[in-house]
Amino acid sequence: MPISLGELAASVGCELIGEPDVVVSGVASLDSATSGSLSFLSSSAYSMQLPSTKAAAVVLRAEDADNCPVAAFVSDNPYATYARMAALIHPEPAFEPGVHASACIADTATVVASAHIAALVVIGENVKIGENTYVGPGSVIGANCTIAADCRLVANVTLVKDVDMGARGLLHPGVVIGSDGFGNAITPQGWVKIPQVGGVRIGNDVEIGANTTVDRGAIGDTVIENGVRIDNLCMIAHNVHVGEHTAMAACTAIAGSTVIGKRCIFAGRSGAVGHITICDDVTVAAQTFLSKDVDEPGVYAASFPADKARSWAKQLARFRRLGVLIERVKKLEK
Amino acid sequence: MPISLGELAASVGCELIGEPDVVVSGVASLDSATSGSLSFLSSSAYSMQLPSTKAAAVVLRAEDADNCPVAAFVSDNPYATYARMAALIHPEPAFEPGVHASACIADTATVVASAHIAALVVIGENVKIGENTYVGPGSVIGANCTIAADCRLVANVTLVKDVDMGARGLLHPGVVIGSDGFGNAITPQGWVKIPQVGGVRIGNDVEIGANTTVDRGAIGDTVIENGVRIDNLCMIAHNVHVGEHTAMAACTAIAGSTVIGKRCIFAGRSGAVGHITICDDVTVAAQTFLSKDVDEPGVYAASFPADKARSWAKQLARFRRLGVLIERVKKLEK
Amino acid sequence: MPISLGELAASVGCELIGEPDVVVSGVASLDSATSGSLSFLSSSAYSMQLPSTKAAAVVLRAEDADNCPVAAFVSDNPYATYARMAALIHPEPAFEPGVHASACIADTATVVASAHIAALVVIGENVKIGENTYVGPGSVIGANCTIAADCRLVANVTLVKDVDMGARGLLHPGVVIGSDGFGNAITPQGWVKIPQVGGVRIGNDVEIGANTTVDRGAIGDTVIENGVRIDNLCMIAHNVHVGEHTAMAACTAIAGSTVIGKRCIFAGRSGAVGHITICDDVTVAAQTFLSKDVDEPGVYAASFPADKARSWAKQLARFRRLGVLIERVKKLEK
Repeated sequence: MPISLGELAASVGCELIGEPDVVVSGVASLDSATSGSLSFLSSSAYSMQLPSTKAAAVVLRAEDADNCPVAAFVSDNPYATYARMAALIHPEPAFEPGVHASACIADTATVVASAHIAALVVIGENVKIGENTYVGPGSVIGANCTIAADCRLVANVTLVKDVDMGARGLLHPGVVIGSDGFGNAITPQGWVKIPQVGGVRIGNDVEIGANTTVDRGAIGDTVIENGVRIDNLCMIAHNVHVGEHTAMAACTAIAGSTVIGKRCIFAGRSGAVGHITICDDVTVAAQTFLSKDVDEPGVYAASFPADKARSWAKQLARFRRLGVLIERVKKLEK
Repeated sequence: MPISLGELAASVGCELIGEPDVVVSGVASLDSATSGSLSFLSSSAYSMQLPSTKAAAVVLRAEDADNCPVAAFVSDNPYATYARMAALIHPEPAFEPGVHASACIADTATVVASAHIAALVVIGENVKIGENTYVGPGSVIGANCTIAADCRLVANVTLVKDVDMGARGLLHPGVVIGSDGFGNAITPQGWVKIPQVGGVRIGNDVEIGANTTVDRGAIGDTVIENGVRIDNLCMIAHNVHVGEHTAMAACTAIAGSTVIGKRCIFAGRSGAVGHITICDDVTVAAQTFLSKDVDEPGVYAASFPADKARSWAKQLARFRRLGVLIERVKKLEK
Repeated sequence: MPISLGELAASVGCELIGEPDVVVSGVASLDSATSGSLSFLSSSAYSMQLPSTKAAAVVLRAEDADNCPVAAFVSDNPYATYARMAALIHPEPAFEPGVHASACIADTATVVASAHIAALVVIGENVKIGENTYVGPGSVIGANCTIAADCRLVANVTLVKDVDMGARGLLHPGVVIGSDGFGNAITPQGWVKIPQVGGVRIGNDVEIGANTTVDRGAIGDTVIENGVRIDNLCMIAHNVHVGEHTAMAACTAIAGSTVIGKRCIFAGRSGAVGHITICDDVTVAAQTFLSKDVDEPGVYAASFPADKARSWAKQLARFRRLGVLIERVKKLEK
């Protein structure tokens, strides 16, 4: 959506150095920008691209403004300011309120007039769909789910039952929320399933990525607090509690009943075992899992980056002979 | 469903210490239970919560009965006994037999009268759906699949084709069974796909978690035996054979043609490489993968729990200089 | 589909030693083959099964022909030759062109007459579906996607929007392409979403496995080149570029903006961090991730195969005391 630099500055509330009437209609990286593009500089790794950019305007820090050959938006947090401007230039596609003729909606469900229920959606008993919420094609919303206002379920999302979702949520395709947790008691005749009778409570402003699963609680609810961001193919097990503004990159897995604090960051394919408590402001490196309570904020890691396979094979052999090496040192010490 | 303690004791076959006419209508943990709740004590970690519980009754071991302030069900396996009672208190929702008007069912498919085919289900040629089986909304059952009695496909499940599923199966949303295995032959012009012409055979009493995938065999079938339990986001590759009562926690991945014994347990994000054989009663720790045949029952592990990132960086540096350390010891020995 | 050995030899272009009029109607492994089966020998691990095979014919190398008790197809690449013959014996099921009455297709979409749109498919605005392409049941194709000729979307596939897919693509159930990348800017009030305005470009002859996700670009496109093969439950993040004929086994995850060369092979549960560049012909071992640019072709590894848990616990203790050992050696050296 074409918008002038002046409108962008006013909407987001930041200083514009340049002509307010210039119009942008897209976003681009510094090196691929054209005269209709908004761009940004938030990492010094890209500073050298600034002087030659062809963008209409660049969001940047005050210290970079002098090197900017075009209009500049000055911000202490250029990445966040860029994000807000980009959302104005590229708004989510609008939708017509209403229910598609092919959707199957239970008589006891409540769908407000401003909501959109897309083609081939199934909505179960006692479901409530809030104002301006969009339920995309192929989604299935099971019994007793509540979805608050301004949510967007992109397509093929499944909410099994007893899911309570806050406002402004964004659920990507293939997301499954409210599936049974993995609870089984062993007997001599095999496993006996533990009925999973809890639900899932999701706060406001939560985004959940494609094909991620969030299980219902065994007893009591699985809880995801306000502002949490979860990427694709993550697994949130039963009775996990994820604190506000925590973010999890792709393939993160959190085992059952673990409690995670606020503002934690889980990098790709990280995770935590079950029944532990993680304090606020913990960052977990990629490919790393937490195995016990964490009481101290900070960064945690335990992964081995790839080596050439031949070197790694030698290294693995040395590792396996560590006991022998220790014996040799002990002998020398005697 | 409200049920008296006496009925619970009789149905499950265990001793009740207390008033049989008291009625429970839900389950709860010891510390959150109210006068209408059934609770349980199976781990000594929660023993201290027993004396103050407000539950109507607690399932517990004989040795804990004296400390129970309320009615007690005495069991050698309180967790399994609780599971059976909880299933009586919280039965799966009932369904009306019949085929929803929006379902698309091939003329050659057989759906018995007691089955339920939900809204927007697609059922292909020659499919057979057994007695009291529930096929949830949005599911796609491809050609030549057979689903036995008393199965429940929750919603948005896909059985691609040639899947033979036993009785009392439970498939959660997003499960894909019978997709092509990953078989490719390399040529100078690129990959040539190996047609995957086998099927999938699944025994009785199998549960498969949300967004888990089970591929069809390349030649011959992928097989999952009776009583297997698989959690969310697991991957069972082509021609894998999973033995009876084996359980796999979330994100477990088993590569092609591996044969797994009975009663094995795979913890979260564990797995096995392809073309190996694992004996019965093997437990694999979280984040650990088996790389060769396992002939001996027991627990296997190989993971590094998280450390503070600064400590880990130092540790990684020491590890990488292991060869140098060995040389230094060798020199000392001379 | 029954076919004679002579036709197979002619179609694929390889030498037949044996009667051309014999007919095969299926494929089988050497040890399970019957008189109607085609089999193959490509790995010496199975050589001992050759003399007793009951197959009608075996695809093998010239050097194995003397030991073959039945008809032989001689090939330098028996596995690829077998693959081509198997595709003739087991062709993909044919489909009738046309649009199922239950499909919901936007007025502005273009579906050619030779395509098949299955039951309960949703096709959005400005979508283009090419010649002989099959869009399986339950699939959702969002706005502005283009699918070229001869593609097969098996079932329940989701293309969110702005996906451009080449010819002869094969997408398995649960695949999600074009979902938002994971981009968030931190502020004192929480995360601000970075609009993901790029698309996804997929070349010809690409296969993507069940429940794999490919995110759209943040700015600019995510790109998958011709001939790439991706297995189940993989994650391709925003702005990744995967080079021609690269293959990724199950659960591989590639973080954002990483560029991968041609003919790379990623084994199961491997991956790469974001913003790195991998040259052509790199192989990554199972459970291994690349953490920095790779300039040299070859095999890379960094994983620890499972050990008995007691041995592993000791080994982990030795590892953690590596610093102490180094101090002891230092002391000895003084």
